[in-house]
Amino acid sequence: MEKIKIDNHAFVYPMPMVLAGSVVGGKPNFMAVGWVSRVNFKPPMIGIAIGPHYTNKGIDENGAFSVNVPGLELMEKTDYCGLVTGGKTDKATLFNVFYGDLRGAPLIGECPICMACKVYQAVSLPFNTLYIGEIVEAYTEERFLTDGKPDIKKINPFTLTMPDNNYWRVGDHAGRAWSIGKSLKSPS
Amino acid sequence: MEKIKIDNHAFVYPMPMVLAGSVVGGKPNFMAVGWVSRVNFKPPMIGIAIGPHYTNKGIDENGAFSVNVPGLELMEKTDYCGLVTGGKTDKATLFNVFYGDLRGAPLIGECPICMACKVYQAVSLPFNTLYIGEIVEAYTEERFLTDGKPDIKKINPFTLTMPDNNYWRVGDHAGRAWSIGKSLKSPS
Repeated sequence: MEKIKIDNHAFVYPMPMVLAGSVVGGKPNFMAVGWVSRVNFKPPMIGIAIGPHYTNKGIDENGAFSVNVPGLELMEKTDYCGLVTGGKTDKATLFNVFYGDLRGAPLIGECPICMACKVYQAVSLPFNTLYIGEIVEAYTEERFLTDGKPDIKKINPFTLTMPDNNYWRVGDHAGRAWSIGKSLKSPS
Repeated sequence: MEKIKIDNHAFVYPMPMVLAGSVVGGKPNFMAVGWVSRVNFKPPMIGIAIGPHYTNKGIDENGAFSVNVPGLELMEKTDYCGLVTGGKTDKATLFNVFYGDLRGAPLIGECPICMACKVYQAVSLPFNTLYIGEIVEAYTEERFLTDGKPDIKKINPFTLTMPDNNYWRVGDHAGRAWSIGKSLKSPS
């Protein structure tokens, strides 16, 4: 098939959607983030790339942030957190907030997976700041586990696509990772 | 519900799966990457966080890499690229490789979305290197577009979960991003 060039402002498909949190002026604040990824194996680190937002103040002040994975039932609230700024709207009351040992990382009780992160490095890019944090605590609930591991079907998260701006459910199981490709190995 | 602590080696759900490519010793090489995200808005930049792999040699040498989004029909081949090292196995013949202007970024003809990236910064983390690249070219095909934008249902990608190591299809449409949260805005 013939390849065509598209806008360089391109994306991966799909993007995970999380709620990133920080404490600004003593209050928890949250924003919707689709630019998020694990970035280091050991110690475990995660990166969030965010523009010049209200949330950044808290991350810079406390050297900490949280990454919370919302389930589908939080889609409206998550989207709302991406629409309004904490500078004008108090988002602290949207969720039941709890804390682990890291006081600058507000965790969301309604989210199946919550990670408290201590800033390791803030990479200043031309527009965004890529905050790289060490995951110092992670929380879930028994009901989201299968065989002791978080189960995506129980978490029931949703994903994002851009530039069309849509959310998507997670679909059926497709295969075992780091396994199904073995069929292509030549016999040795 | 009661929160419980889990291993800090935690993840977002789900992770996009891509094939990252570089040219090593004159030959294209590819690896499976689930730690990938857009990291800057303008100019468009993407980051891939990879361990000490064969692919890195090519990225370091040429200052370039590619990010290719595979469809579900490439799941076995993608997984295979994550199982074997380019140091021992020639992965150049697995795909129909093409190039844009950036000669160090081998693009995969079978992938619905291909991005050629010029290294902007290599962030050395304790284990991984986070390669941040400016997306200088992006390619698709007419058949993957709807209203001029890449359509995830036509791309038909798959996602990864860890530590359970599974691949997942993309499910149904769930809502409009940066829109459905408006219902929570207080009337003003």
